[in-house]
Amino acid sequence: MWGALSPVGRSAQSGGYFRQPFRTAESELRSWFVEACTARGLRLEGDGLGNLVGWWGEEHATRPDERLLTGSHLDSVLDGGAYDGPLGVVSALAAVDRMRERGVVPSRPIGVSVFVEEEGSRFGLACLGSRLLTGATTWEHARELRDRDGVALPDALAAVDLPGLDPGAGDARDLLAGVTTFVELHVEQGRALVDLGHAIGVASGIWPHGRYRFEMTGTADHAGTTRMEDRADPMLTYAMTALAADEQARLTGARATFGRIEVEPNGTNAVPSRVTGWLDARCEDEAALSELVAAVERRAQQRAETDGTAVRVVAESVSGLVTFDPALARHVAGDHAVGDWPVLPTQAGHDAGVLSTAGIPTVMLFVRNPSGVSHSPAESATVPDCLVGVDALADTLERLCR
Amino acid sequence: MWGALSPVGRSAQSGGYFRQPFRTAESELRSWFVEACTARGLRLEGDGLGNLVGWWGEEHATRPDERLLTGSHLDSVLDGGAYDGPLGVVSALAAVDRMRERGVVPSRPIGVSVFVEEEGSRFGLACLGSRLLTGATTWEHARELRDRDGVALPDALAAVDLPGLDPGAGDARDLLAGVTTFVELHVEQGRALVDLGHAIGVASGIWPHGRYRFEMTGTADHAGTTRMEDRADPMLTYAMTALAADEQARLTGARATFGRIEVEPNGTNAVPSRVTGWLDARCEDEAALSELVAAVERRAQQRAETDGTAVRVVAESVSGLVTFDPALARHVAGDHAVGDWPVLPTQAGHDAGVLSTAGIPTVMLFVRNPSGVSHSPAESATVPDCLVGVDALADTLERLCR
Repeated sequence: MWGALSPVGRSAQSGGYFRQPFRTAESELRSWFVEACTARGLRLEGDGLGNLVGWWGEEHATRPDERLLTGSHLDSVLDGGAYDGPLGVVSALAAVDRMRERGVVPSRPIGVSVFVEEEGSRFGLACLGSRLLTGATTWEHARELRDRDGVALPDALAAVDLPGLDPGAGDARDLLAGVTTFVELHVEQGRALVDLGHAIGVASGIWPHGRYRFEMTGTADHAGTTRMEDRADPMLTYAMTALAADEQARLTGARATFGRIEVEPNGTNAVPSRVTGWLDARCEDEAALSELVAAVERRAQQRAETDGTAVRVVAESVSGLVTFDPALARHVAGDHAVGDWPVLPTQAGHDAGVLSTAGIPTVMLFVRNPSGVSHSPAESATVPDCLVGVDALADTLERLCR
Repeated sequence: MWGALSPVGRSAQSGGYFRQPFRTAESELRSWFVEACTARGLRLEGDGLGNLVGWWGEEHATRPDERLLTGSHLDSVLDGGAYDGPLGVVSALAAVDRMRERGVVPSRPIGVSVFVEEEGSRFGLACLGSRLLTGATTWEHARELRDRDGVALPDALAAVDLPGLDPGAGDARDLLAGVTTFVELHVEQGRALVDLGHAIGVASGIWPHGRYRFEMTGTADHAGTTRMEDRADPMLTYAMTALAADEQARLTGARATFGRIEVEPNGTNAVPSRVTGWLDARCEDEAALSELVAAVERRAQQRAETDGTAVRVVAESVSGLVTFDPALARHVAGDHAVGDWPVLPTQAGHDAGVLSTAGIPTVMLFVRNPSGVSHSPAESATVPDCLVGVDALADTLERLCR
């Protein structure tokens, strides 16, 4: 499976992946998934938004109403790694194969799921697919989302051929009906498992995090003839704000990043009229997150007074603290041949967090990442660790069927 | 003429102009110019690069070898003003009309010129047309230039229908043959004439200036899971450099601007792998310019050490000090009914600077700009001042024919 996926959406230049939703590479991955489900005789369901589930073992399940879902996503950030998302989908399919080889007849229907636009790399709202499925985001809100080229979500959807019903007509199928447990396997996005010497870990929860758009407006002017003291240059306001965010995060043990910027008119010889920067902020608790963002905004406003510019901050998406079901985490993590798997928090958002927040008991498994790097072509996982991950996922699903 | 030009390439949103070379709006302006020359019976010459001259009075000239050229450019910066460039071309045509009305038979052939890509907004090299005409830039160098979409200059040229010969074949017509004086009328790009209470000024010279590309490279990473101390974030290096440039310029009475930036991958939840910023720097003398750029680079390198990033600086174009022929400036500026026109320096590059540097005695006239703003939709000039400008240009051309 890995060999089939590796070339799809890969940049020859950077080696990174560009798998934005409803674009060619991601559509190719979706077709691959449909084929993989069909080849395994899984019953496929789609909701018309791009979310997909392939069901196994429905006919012999003795607990048909306690559906067990496992999966992840196939989209990537811009220039992302190979594992973030696809490892969870491939491992879910491989775990089904492994269980079949072992002669397992699951007591619960097991679904392999793909959620759409997990990264938010196209429409700016992370976990869009799972948010729409759980109602965390409404279709009324989502239909207004636009990508960087101004294409609205419904138009992007209309341009691809998706299995399922018409979400605009309000009759999208509820793929989560009857689901009482969700398991997501994911490559680790830090170095904790490397430091702990474990191939597999279990998530305790997800830090609160959010995306905040900082719009800084000034006055376009000639870069040569305009005296420094006559300018209202929003680039300076932006620069100070980016440095302030970094400083605040270091002071408080949080994470803050300005990784995306748009400048108008973005010409070498023009003072910009507008600079928009996106702050990605994450903290251990929700109060700290609010405080961090407020502190960065305060510094931005202070600098704007000096620069003669204006600052407006819009929270594009904010996710609260997620605590995965602690008893379930202990149940999954305990009593293995290698000893207990370590239980650790993560700073990254996941569909698992959205489903957990919606009240579905949820487990996350992490597979060790030697580079510790993610959202980058340098993201990594060894083949032996990936195979251990498949076994761990199969064991977990069996355990959850007992 | 102004009514015909006003809508071309204008953004309905900002009111600013997007007239990049060899794109639709600029091609439309070139067609308009060809038509305007034809309607006036001017003999049109083109060099296949987009530079154009319409000649008047060749048949009756008593000094046929002392050609007098006047004009400017039709392209704009991204989201630029209406006057920067077109005012000089329109005023040149209007000055020819005015002289004809007065019954002037010029002793020298008078050419109305349009130079291509003066702003460098598409291929990054300002005054590209006049640089190629004077040999300040060679075709061997220019043919390697690419726009932001990766389109090479020869391919952009091939896509439009230009009067003239094939520059690639090395037989571009020398539009400057026999030209012994150049006059460029231009909207003022600062407030000096407003402060002095004059509608017209004469340029003494142009500050040395340059464009420098700062390439800052780090490591792409997950914005959530990567600890602040494990990052190599080039956005921080960029931010500090932009602030340092501003500070250095204020300290030394110079101009320094970071108005253009490109970020990879430019995703909200990814630490960038690369940030490229363009520094536009201008100083009163060449030593000061070198010192300013060196100081900014030093600050960038210092910060890069802290950030674990790397900085590389490439000078994309550097223009030395231009001093317009002082005797000619005095001759043009003196003995008017309103008293002498003021003579003042400018910080903006112009084709006039390129032609002057190439040894052609050159005069620049400025028309008052009430807003003082340029390279912006807010750029302005009043109709009465523009008409005074036409008279001033016609008077100057007549004076230069005496």
